[in-house]
Amino acid sequence: MSLTPEQKQEIEALKGQTQATRRAVVPALEEILYDAIPVLDHGFVRVIDYMGDDAAIVQAARVSYGKGTKQLREDRGLIRYLLRHRHTTPFEMCEIKYHVKLPIFVARQWIRHRTANVNEYSARYSILDKEFYVPPREQLAAQSASNRQGRGDVLEGAEAEETLRILREDAERCYADYQMLLNETSDGQTIDPNRQGLARELARMNLTLNLYTQWYWKVNLHNLLHFLSLRADPHAQYEIRVYAEAMLETLKRWVPASYEAFEDYVVGAVTFSRGALDVVQRLLAGETVDPADTGLSPREWRELMQTLGREV
Amino acid sequence: MSLTPEQKQEIEALKGQTQATRRAVVPALEEILYDAIPVLDHGFVRVIDYMGDDAAIVQAARVSYGKGTKQLREDRGLIRYLLRHRHTTPFEMCEIKYHVKLPIFVARQWIRHRTANVNEYSARYSILDKEFYVPPREQLAAQSASNRQGRGDVLEGAEAEETLRILREDAERCYADYQMLLNETSDGQTIDPNRQGLARELARMNLTLNLYTQWYWKVNLHNLLHFLSLRADPHAQYEIRVYAEAMLETLKRWVPASYEAFEDYVVGAVTFSRGALDVVQRLLAGETVDPADTGLSPREWRELMQTLGREV
Amino acid sequence: MSLTPEQKQEIEALKGQTQATRRAVVPALEEILYDAIPVLDHGFVRVIDYMGDDAAIVQAARVSYGKGTKQLREDRGLIRYLLRHRHTTPFEMCEIKYHVKLPIFVARQWIRHRTANVNEYSARYSILDKEFYVPPREQLAAQSASNRQGRGDVLEGAEAEETLRILREDAERCYADYQMLLNETSDGQTIDPNRQGLARELARMNLTLNLYTQWYWKVNLHNLLHFLSLRADPHAQYEIRVYAEAMLETLKRWVPASYEAFEDYVVGAVTFSRGALDVVQRLLAGETVDPADTGLSPREWRELMQTLGREV
Amino acid sequence: MSLTPEQKQEIEALKGQTQATRRAVVPALEEILYDAIPVLDHGFVRVIDYMGDDAAIVQAARVSYGKGTKQLREDRGLIRYLLRHRHTTPFEMCEIKYHVKLPIFVARQWIRHRTANVNEYSARYSILDKEFYVPPREQLAAQSASNRQGRGDVLEGAEAEETLRILREDAERCYADYQMLLNETSDGQTIDPNRQGLARELARMNLTLNLYTQWYWKVNLHNLLHFLSLRADPHAQYEIRVYAEAMLETLKRWVPASYEAFEDYVVGAVTFSRGALDVVQRLLAGETVDPADTGLSPREWRELMQTLGREV
Repeated sequence: MSLTPEQKQEIEALKGQTQATRRAVVPALEEILYDAIPVLDHGFVRVIDYMGDDAAIVQAARVSYGKGTKQLREDRGLIRYLLRHRHTTPFEMCEIKYHVKLPIFVARQWIRHRTANVNEYSARYSILDKEFYVPPREQLAAQSASNRQGRGDVLEGAEAEETLRILREDAERCYADYQMLLNETSDGQTIDPNRQGLARELARMNLTLNLYTQWYWKVNLHNLLHFLSLRADPHAQYEIRVYAEAMLETLKRWVPASYEAFEDYVVGAVTFSRGALDVVQRLLAGETVDPADTGLSPREWRELMQTLGREV
Repeated sequence: MSLTPEQKQEIEALKGQTQATRRAVVPALEEILYDAIPVLDHGFVRVIDYMGDDAAIVQAARVSYGKGTKQLREDRGLIRYLLRHRHTTPFEMCEIKYHVKLPIFVARQWIRHRTANVNEYSARYSILDKEFYVPPREQLAAQSASNRQGRGDVLEGAEAEETLRILREDAERCYADYQMLLNETSDGQTIDPNRQGLARELARMNLTLNLYTQWYWKVNLHNLLHFLSLRADPHAQYEIRVYAEAMLETLKRWVPASYEAFEDYVVGAVTFSRGALDVVQRLLAGETVDPADTGLSPREWRELMQTLGREV
Repeated sequence: MSLTPEQKQEIEALKGQTQATRRAVVPALEEILYDAIPVLDHGFVRVIDYMGDDAAIVQAARVSYGKGTKQLREDRGLIRYLLRHRHTTPFEMCEIKYHVKLPIFVARQWIRHRTANVNEYSARYSILDKEFYVPPREQLAAQSASNRQGRGDVLEGAEAEETLRILREDAERCYADYQMLLNETSDGQTIDPNRQGLARELARMNLTLNLYTQWYWKVNLHNLLHFLSLRADPHAQYEIRVYAEAMLETLKRWVPASYEAFEDYVVGAVTFSRGALDVVQRLLAGETVDPADTGLSPREWRELMQTLGREV
Repeated sequence: MSLTPEQKQEIEALKGQTQATRRAVVPALEEILYDAIPVLDHGFVRVIDYMGDDAAIVQAARVSYGKGTKQLREDRGLIRYLLRHRHTTPFEMCEIKYHVKLPIFVARQWIRHRTANVNEYSARYSILDKEFYVPPREQLAAQSASNRQGRGDVLEGAEAEETLRILREDAERCYADYQMLLNETSDGQTIDPNRQGLARELARMNLTLNLYTQWYWKVNLHNLLHFLSLRADPHAQYEIRVYAEAMLETLKRWVPASYEAFEDYVVGAVTFSRGALDVVQRLLAGETVDPADTGLSPREWRELMQTLGREV
């Protein structure tokens, strides 16, 4: 991550100011407010603003006139109850706003979550910075043999070198040509006074998908939990998962009781199909179960045995 | 509006607390935070929380690292530009949460706006209070003769008396019978120890649509403006319009530059159809325009002339 | 359910017409298209239109140029895979439109599902029919002692009689007074020529919540499955559950492979929390587990044992 | 546009089949169903399915049991009334599904419309085709001097040549390197048996933003009209506008009365701000208006004069 001195100064200026408010305040989140949490080689996640806390969930669930909270223990119990039973609307009463810098190919996955508010930096209007993602060596994975949308072994030796070289050189050349098309350098200098320069909205098409973009992204807690349940999952692509993991840390500071319930009832939970549940019941009854006799596909059987911690 | 002493105390307790925050703070809105603004005979609107201010719109539009704001005048200009050109996403970066008490028939209109977060007081779970809406005498309107979904003259004399009597008596009787069905008085006393009482989720069906309900309602600024443009409009039913008007006052305190732009470019604006624009151009060119020669329906013509401040 | 002869005729007229189309057609659903499936005492569910079938899910998942389907068995496998792994977007490619007649208190629960398109019959504009819901005797349940939003024993004898009498009489009286307020009978006759009649948008507030309303409700398959998973659930209130059950039957006709997968992976599935999974693993390993030693609440333990088919 | 013989065959196979349905059918749209309408150099728009027609809007607005339509003229009048008065929900009762092939930078604008259902071809799972957009010579525009997000003069001579050369060569090289990274040619041949090949989800980041992607995109009529009002607008970028224009043609076939109303009340309409309306009224009253005396910014004044067909 490379913030310019000017950007660092702007962030510090924001952090330096405090004002009095009658609203719910979460000191643990205030501590890191505006800070750029590094993700990938040039990206970051910054919490810009938030509304509500764990108590606001309880307050809304009770439609109360005051804080709505009783004893801390009781509130925690209610939050766990609500999450366990999919009473999701009270979680919509909390809101958080992030500033995120991320590669375009990650942004394309991320934006599929339609329930957030987004303002992206416009390459129609402005010129993008020269920053592109190159995976760290340990993430240079081969295509998985078993999973058509997963990663296999890490590339090694000459192939790894060559891969990194190609990614770097193509991104560099495309960016240099982007400037050439614009007829303008990064610091706003005209390259050739005899040329006009291609319109920004056209020149951007010459950039590669690993270039970084950035946006403001605002979401309510319910939709954030849904996003994190999919994107912090081991099946998510590494490059988006690291963003989700950084956001999980902000979640823990913001709404600790919800975070804990989320870990117990969503992240660490498993769903058993009708057929899988039947197998579990038969196993508990001491039966020896023949996979062929369960209606489960071989893959489902394998996944079930792994979930149950059994040898396959 | 009738808050219990306990409710008043809870509100005062919230108002009495202030804490330090690094977030954007709007003092003019903090002043009325948590206050119950009276609407209709027993309803209210309370601002419970908010996120962002006018500057947050500018900050998001610029995807900036710091406040994003420049001079106040420049920011105001950008907000006006954004609203005029329907660049709506930056307005989604501000959020507000209300606690509203409102008659059920108003709630049924209101809930049709699907882009908000809602937690309603549950009559499946709890017992509703005995509070129902009876229109003030000057709002006891007859059906409009010209507009199938509008109001005409105000009822007078005996008909007005009779109308009020019916509304009051039916609501009272239905509420008394609701308690009878529940076998429980408002203060939780069992009425007849030999009866079981009907389940709450069933007993509620005996209530009339003018009974008050309440909810927490949270919305972003863009969707709030859309809601207000429809519900603060003279064509909206009076009973929902007064809520929209109360919320307009909170808008003015919260985001004054957006409020002003909204007044100029939405509330006070008019849209001219292709045909109406043609008429305006011809009139400005000094032409005498024959309504029959415009493609406008008689009703469209009449509305156009009124908009232009001309005799019809 | 009571359709007027005119309504029956309109439905028959629609059913009588067939035209050629190149779109996907589902004969089993066409059979019942437009039919009013009775629900509760006066309600119904009618399928009015649909888009797509099981094959359309496969076609979208593969972003194919043609039908996208391969062998029937392979398609079924893909649909099961998609649902099992929460790849929900292909299910959004099918759409269905219902016409529903339902009591207002049921409509108020239903409308909380915000992801559908709705056109409700307007009592601002038109006069509602005199049809209200009175529960069948076996549904006249007392409040549950253990579950604050559930039902307990069925009321009996005099209490049941009295309950039915109150519900009927109050609804009848309120409806009669609604006409009186409007100064208009159901068949459009003025009651008293010397009165003006209250505006429709006001008079409707005198009606009880068990009166029937109706709407067109259109939803995509993904959101329909979500709706059904919540509303066909045993914890849903009986009066909305019967609608969900009627819709499940239409689902079975429309997209049989999706229906089957939904039954196996959603309706019949259970989710085990992190702690519950740990208990299952320990039980399978032959351990004797002490509830106090699991981190589960007594209620969670009880529910887990029931799910596993064990004595509590 | 280059469809493979196999794709053409699949399309023809779909077009060749007809079946009987009781649903609303629109022959003018059926005629072009499944056809690939060419857009840009390799893109297309195909209508894959639809639900409803103009009559379905009327039917929903009236919540009717039958077709809901009366005389054709009356229906047209109702549709115009609904659109003019922003009664948008009946338009949500029609749905259409497109298959679209489009450059990634266009897809990134398009996806910001969150109210549609989308299934995009996955480059995590599959290998993208070698097809990228190069603007036609007459669209090679320079940056606009007056509008920071618009186009100015068309580039000429050597600069145009050079621009085209860069766009082509960079896209070609990046695509060739994409294959090299994958270690796989377009027809699935391994390039070097001693290499493993980078995972697809990573290799894709080496592609340029003018590469074509494709998706299934499904939307209701109300949201489609909103999309078209923004994207068929002269201020929209040319490369997305041509898609919107192709879709306008399908709209005209599908719902002709709605199309006509859309042209009159949205596309051809103008909105006058409070201040602009005041100017119009003063001009019509014969007043000479001094721009400085109107509260309008110079830009607003200029736009207003142009709208009114006046010299500036």
